Amino acid sequence: MTRETNAPYSYDGLDRVIHEKARLGIMTSLIGHPKGLSFADLKRLCGLTDGNLSRHLQVLEETGLVRIDKSFEGKRPLTTCRLTGEGRARFLDYLAELERVVRDAADVAEISDRDPLLNPRGA
Amino acid sequence: MTRETNAPYSYDGLDRVIHEKARLGIMTSLIGHPKGLSFADLKRLCGLTDGNLSRHLQVLEETGLVRIDKSFEGKRPLTTCRLTGEGRARFLDYLAELERVVRDAADVAEISDRDPLLNPRGA
Repeated sequence: MTRETNAPYSYDGLDRVIHEKARLGIMTSLIGHPKGLSFADLKRLCGLTDGNLSRHLQVLEETGLVRIDKSFEGKRPLTTCRLTGEGRARFLDYLAELERVVRDAADVAEISDRDPLLNPRGA
Repeated sequence: MTRETNAPYSYDGLDRVIHEKARLGIMTSLIGHPKGLSFADLKRLCGLTDGNLSRHLQVLEETGLVRIDKSFEGKRPLTTCRLTGEGRARFLDYLAELERVVRDAADVAEISDRDPLLNPRGA
């Protein structure tokens, strides 16, 4: 993308669907659990309310990143959430871009710390 | 925070003001330029329109993360944006949390890749 070349800090690869803070927690929880996680486990891991988790899962399901299966454990309904193949691939791409943000910022913050003229408090 | 202990993926440290994708680009641009950047330079570095950049700068100024000075270069008005001390400190905290997200995800993604029972396509 030309825009990205001209604008090194536009971070076009930060997919907004994934970047939202709660959804980032959901995706991180799910990538470590290929067999899926129950709604209750996800809720606990991400510190979300029922309503918030439902709303964010719906966005992730509609965009094809997460699959949601409803079944029964004995007589109790069980909701299982897992990443789709596309969800996993897109999340790994997102993480690569996130790593670039961290690296960019660390690089430039270090340069300005090291230059006493630019930052008199720097080491 | 108890909530954070119970919910390892809640990422409470991801300050929403900074986490927004365009503002993340602005903060990254500014942390490398302690003397500040002109509105025009920021616009180019972040690939934003005038309207978008103005709107996001206003949020960052209102929350005390960025200082905006208006002066003249000859007869031309010049807008200079720079991080405040608080902005710099809060951005470094944010980056530490962002690094944790990248590390968490890399750790769990690696574990699930390595387990052929969990991920038959894994290496």
